[in-house]
Amino acid sequence: MVQFVDVKNVSRWISTTGLDNIFDGLVSYVESDFKRWENFEKRPRVASHSHYGVIELMPTSDGSNYSFKYVNGHPINTKKGLQTVTAFGVIADVESGYPTFISEMTLLTALRTAATSVVAASPLLNPGVESMSMIGTGSQSEFQAIAFRSKFGIQNLKVWDTDPEAMEKFVLNLEPLGFDITVAKNANEAVAGAQLITTCTADKTNATILTEDMVAVGAHINALGGDCPGKTELDADLLRKSKIFVELTEQTRIEGEIQQLEADSEVTELWTVLRGSAEGRSSHDMITIFDSVGFAIEDFSVLRYLQNSVQGTDYFEELDLIAEPSDPKNLFSLISENAVW
Amino acid sequence: MVQFVDVKNVSRWISTTGLDNIFDGLVSYVESDFKRWENFEKRPRVASHSHYGVIELMPTSDGSNYSFKYVNGHPINTKKGLQTVTAFGVIADVESGYPTFISEMTLLTALRTAATSVVAASPLLNPGVESMSMIGTGSQSEFQAIAFRSKFGIQNLKVWDTDPEAMEKFVLNLEPLGFDITVAKNANEAVAGAQLITTCTADKTNATILTEDMVAVGAHINALGGDCPGKTELDADLLRKSKIFVELTEQTRIEGEIQQLEADSEVTELWTVLRGSAEGRSSHDMITIFDSVGFAIEDFSVLRYLQNSVQGTDYFEELDLIAEPSDPKNLFSLISENAVW
Repeated sequence: MVQFVDVKNVSRWISTTGLDNIFDGLVSYVESDFKRWENFEKRPRVASHSHYGVIELMPTSDGSNYSFKYVNGHPINTKKGLQTVTAFGVIADVESGYPTFISEMTLLTALRTAATSVVAASPLLNPGVESMSMIGTGSQSEFQAIAFRSKFGIQNLKVWDTDPEAMEKFVLNLEPLGFDITVAKNANEAVAGAQLITTCTADKTNATILTEDMVAVGAHINALGGDCPGKTELDADLLRKSKIFVELTEQTRIEGEIQQLEADSEVTELWTVLRGSAEGRSSHDMITIFDSVGFAIEDFSVLRYLQNSVQGTDYFEELDLIAEPSDPKNLFSLISENAVW
Repeated sequence: MVQFVDVKNVSRWISTTGLDNIFDGLVSYVESDFKRWENFEKRPRVASHSHYGVIELMPTSDGSNYSFKYVNGHPINTKKGLQTVTAFGVIADVESGYPTFISEMTLLTALRTAATSVVAASPLLNPGVESMSMIGTGSQSEFQAIAFRSKFGIQNLKVWDTDPEAMEKFVLNLEPLGFDITVAKNANEAVAGAQLITTCTADKTNATILTEDMVAVGAHINALGGDCPGKTELDADLLRKSKIFVELTEQTRIEGEIQQLEADSEVTELWTVLRGSAEGRSSHDMITIFDSVGFAIEDFSVLRYLQNSVQGTDYFEELDLIAEPSDPKNLFSLISENAVW
């Protein structure tokens, strides 16, 4: 039997545990998995592109556990009342090859992306930052805001989205939780003077959400929306004057903001900074960018975190997914009883 | 909601439909999908190797439906009472990116492999063959035997396996269904004079199950067991004197019997024969080999066949796998009710 956590149970788990508690634990999982980077099998995600969007598989393994995520990216979906991104994931036991755990991952992806943003910001953010500017207030935005508050105590948010209803939704969701939110009139106003900027827009185009002149010295940019070929948010000149941090270079060159740069442009892998073998922010005035595209190890971390969290609870069901004949060479026995030939 | 067919329901579906009926339908699905080869996205499977075995993802898409299979290969598993191969698979809608259908695929893999063997044998087998020799009587063997009888009327089987209990199991499963089975004393005896040989052994080594001198002129060899790097069954000299047919050349060079040959050795892709653009068997005396490794399109075929077969039946349940907030940009709403912060 395979343990299965459905949407309702992930929702219940999050609601009853509380996002602050979850981010506390999850940030540790992501950070400790990034620090043991060489333990993992790493490859760019396996993407199937269509003119509607993209469907991807993101596998990894640490030699004991294997995981993969199924995830789609269909920006056009919101117009049809569907999610841009939906996902589910699986853990398997490397020794037997048997799947052990399946979960919805639409919610989990929002959690792990926010946790990874916080892990990246820790060595990159200037000290004393008290507010975050956010461009894009879609599905992921509330999770980002709560994760940053949880780790850095940031209560003040300045937001901008081309969709007024999405901003209204954001305010309605987060003001009751004590955030102080300013709705800007445009992107320029939202980011003016900001030391921390999160960009998270969904258009599948080379958009220019931020240009060089909009960004203050010393800012850290948590850039989430450049995540597949032809989908970027930041102006190339802004990239050129900033220090750029990535998850897996090979994947980010395909999917991230840096697809706009030369193939040998300088980037720093986040795990090397976390391990202390590379420098993060090296001056107060430097602009840093976390060019986040989302990597399989983050999915591994959140799946393992959930798997460990739900043991002994009623947050999972069991699925009869794996054929188990009593004689392993007698698969046929599963159908030969009462069979019609 | 995603439709889910578990092991029990696939077993029920097979038992009540009957394997002959299933192979009738499934052979058509596989054949028609192979004939529209250029409609599909094709890539070698995505493998994660460990010293225990291999875990693989096998994705494909025809532009309307996307499918992938998760499958492991752990020959050591039978010693622990576990299956060598377990699998499950998913269909998704390319337009929305949403998964629509999940099924166990341990049984389905045995079905589609046998159906594909039959599809390949059709243009390669000499006419009038009335018996099949089988080396290896493990999990897949009964399905192969029934598929070949279903299509070619072959009732007589000559079998050999290094495990006497596996042979006994095979006889107990198939004699009641009217097969005439001879248990050989060794591989040589099993294949002597045979015009149709199925090899299906599971050792993860470069084994030599068949050598050149063992195989009669005019034979067709349905070779299933060479299916990952370092795992082959046929002697290289036998390969060199035979005409070899493959699924996707690029994948078979990595996984199949032909990994023993030069990288530019001549092979014919099966779909070209089915479409009539390449020749199959071109003389009575030629030895033909279907170097079957299993390809993603076959999984697509069997998943689509099952999906279509179970509509309107009670052979599936529904899983709450996809988060569906009423406002697609308000993923947060799924957890904000009754939440603890």
